[in-house]
Amino acid sequence: MELQFLGTGAGMPSKMRNTSAVILNLSAEGEGYWLFDCGEATQHQLLHTPLKPRKIAKIFITHLHGDHIFGLPGLLGSRSFLGGNERLEIYGPSGLKEWLETTLRITTTHLNYELLIQEVGEGIIVEDDKFKVIAKNLQHGIPCLGYRIEQKPLPGKLLIDKVNEAGVPKGPLLKELKDGSDVTLPDGRLIFSKDVTGEPQEGFTVTILGDTSYCNAAVELALDADLLVHEATFDMDTDNLAKEYGHSTIGDAARTASEAGAKKLIANHISARFMPSDVAKLKEQGEAIFPTLHIAEDFSRFVWIDGQVKNLNAEKPS
Amino acid sequence: MELQFLGTGAGMPSKMRNTSAVILNLSAEGEGYWLFDCGEATQHQLLHTPLKPRKIAKIFITHLHGDHIFGLPGLLGSRSFLGGNERLEIYGPSGLKEWLETTLRITTTHLNYELLIQEVGEGIIVEDDKFKVIAKNLQHGIPCLGYRIEQKPLPGKLLIDKVNEAGVPKGPLLKELKDGSDVTLPDGRLIFSKDVTGEPQEGFTVTILGDTSYCNAAVELALDADLLVHEATFDMDTDNLAKEYGHSTIGDAARTASEAGAKKLIANHISARFMPSDVAKLKEQGEAIFPTLHIAEDFSRFVWIDGQVKNLNAEKPS
Ligand SMILES: [Zn+2]
Ligand SMILES: [Zn+2]
Repeated sequence: MELQFLGTGAGMPSKMRNTSAVILNLSAEGEGYWLFDCGEATQHQLLHTPLKPRKIAKIFITHLHGDHIFGLPGLLGSRSFLGGNERLEIYGPSGLKEWLETTLRITTTHLNYELLIQEVGEGIIVEDDKFKVIAKNLQHGIPCLGYRIEQKPLPGKLLIDKVNEAGVPKGPLLKELKDGSDVTLPDGRLIFSKDVTGEPQEGFTVTILGDTSYCNAAVELALDADLLVHEATFDMDTDNLAKEYGHSTIGDAARTASEAGAKKLIANHISARFMPSDVAKLKEQGEAIFPTLHIAEDFSRFVWIDGQVKNLNAEKPS
Repeated sequence: MELQFLGTGAGMPSKMRNTSAVILNLSAEGEGYWLFDCGEATQHQLLHTPLKPRKIAKIFITHLHGDHIFGLPGLLGSRSFLGGNERLEIYGPSGLKEWLETTLRITTTHLNYELLIQEVGEGIIVEDDKFKVIAKNLQHGIPCLGYRIEQKPLPGKLLIDKVNEAGVPKGPLLKELKDGSDVTLPDGRLIFSKDVTGEPQEGFTVTILGDTSYCNAAVELALDADLLVHEATFDMDTDNLAKEYGHSTIGDAARTASEAGAKKLIANHISARFMPSDVAKLKEQGEAIFPTLHIAEDFSRFVWIDGQVKNLNAEKPS
């Protein structure tokens, strides 16, 4: 799992930060890329990364404000033009389907792939053998979702000593045991997977929220998460504005991470009002409440290694 | 008059060229900016110029392909957010109104200014005391307009010798004479404007076309124009593709400029297939037919000085 931020600004693009988009790269887990929100010029940001639009398999939209969706039609078209022919699933609040269908129709955009647009509310909105995605309503004036992505426990490692001891022949039976199935050997003996594999490994949980004031739903979505991505449109001196506009301060984000027992917090959706020195102050304010905090920059990358989220320094785009 | 290209690419953004947008800056003529087409990330391109979104007074859309309009909703929102409160007029083909209204409604975008969306066909679509804009249908598979912008003749210069001779007192009467009105002096004498002013100065004509194959309408729109902006999606070796997709080669653009008797041609809508060396070849192919030709780059600027269009070198964006 890798997480790469493509846009970390609020409301409008600036030279420093584009509008919202973050890619959860699940290629290693066999799921392709999952994109969360798609502000205008997200496809332009992708041009400065090695990421390929055609590998985007799912898109999750938190809410229908322009700074979170205006890049979607262009990206859908380019994904097709650049060779994408595998089905794309888009999840988001009610209204998304009407807007996308109207847009594709009026611009006569032809897609060389199947497009599934699924308007969703609270609940489990995606589940397969490897992942579960849970959505909850946040607090932002218009319907706005937060997403909790849970990787299911991974089968334990095959214990070579044990399979040799049991006399399991090399080949497909080993893979079945590794994948959790019990097998019958050619000589009739039944071998239980649990006897020849180690403990199942816990999967990761990543929580990616849309714009929101502090709310219980955010804490619930982030419960024990390895990583929480939370907006911080305001600093703690402008708490009143945050509440008024349905946004969070860096303090709200840190408090949510802390109450949820999350392991790491990445704050994004940073207003262009904040100069680089203000961002340092923002970080300090947050760290006083929740120490394992990063402020996302455009192109910041985070990876999941040995059960931990590690920060790869933001690379300057080429 | 200044013309600045914001996007000169075709179909999709690349690192070198954004999708279509060009600003006709008529600030000196008292008309603000007129924007022609608005591909995705046009507002991002503006961030790298001194141009201000709130000064955009009119937007002309040639056709409803995504690479010509996907930047529109974001720009409309940002224009409002950045202090724009004067009325904005948008002209374009049928379907534009439904798309924009659907988009603004679903994204709950609030604009602090009056928005007039006018779906237009062929004819005079804008006329005031200084300018006339004429539209014609081009040939591009879907309805696609070309625009001819004619500046009306400017009143001749006030001839100081003549007004002194006639004994016109300094003050508002001079301005009236300059603006073409005849006036009565305090002593009862009638002074005719034409007797104290020089010849009316001819205005400029700029023709900005949407995507098109070679067609008569393009030639008619460009007749005797000081400047023709014409697409050149293909080179002369791929003539068959140009026709098939409703586009032009650099040869078609040059031929149109030549047949119309235009004074200068700027080719834009250049495919990302063309590397810088290919672009040089493109230029050669065009110049063989029509010598006063420029290939537009993103941020290229052209100004109208002393009755001529001059090319200011493209400035690297900051
Ligand atoms: Zn937002
Ligand atoms: Zn085009």
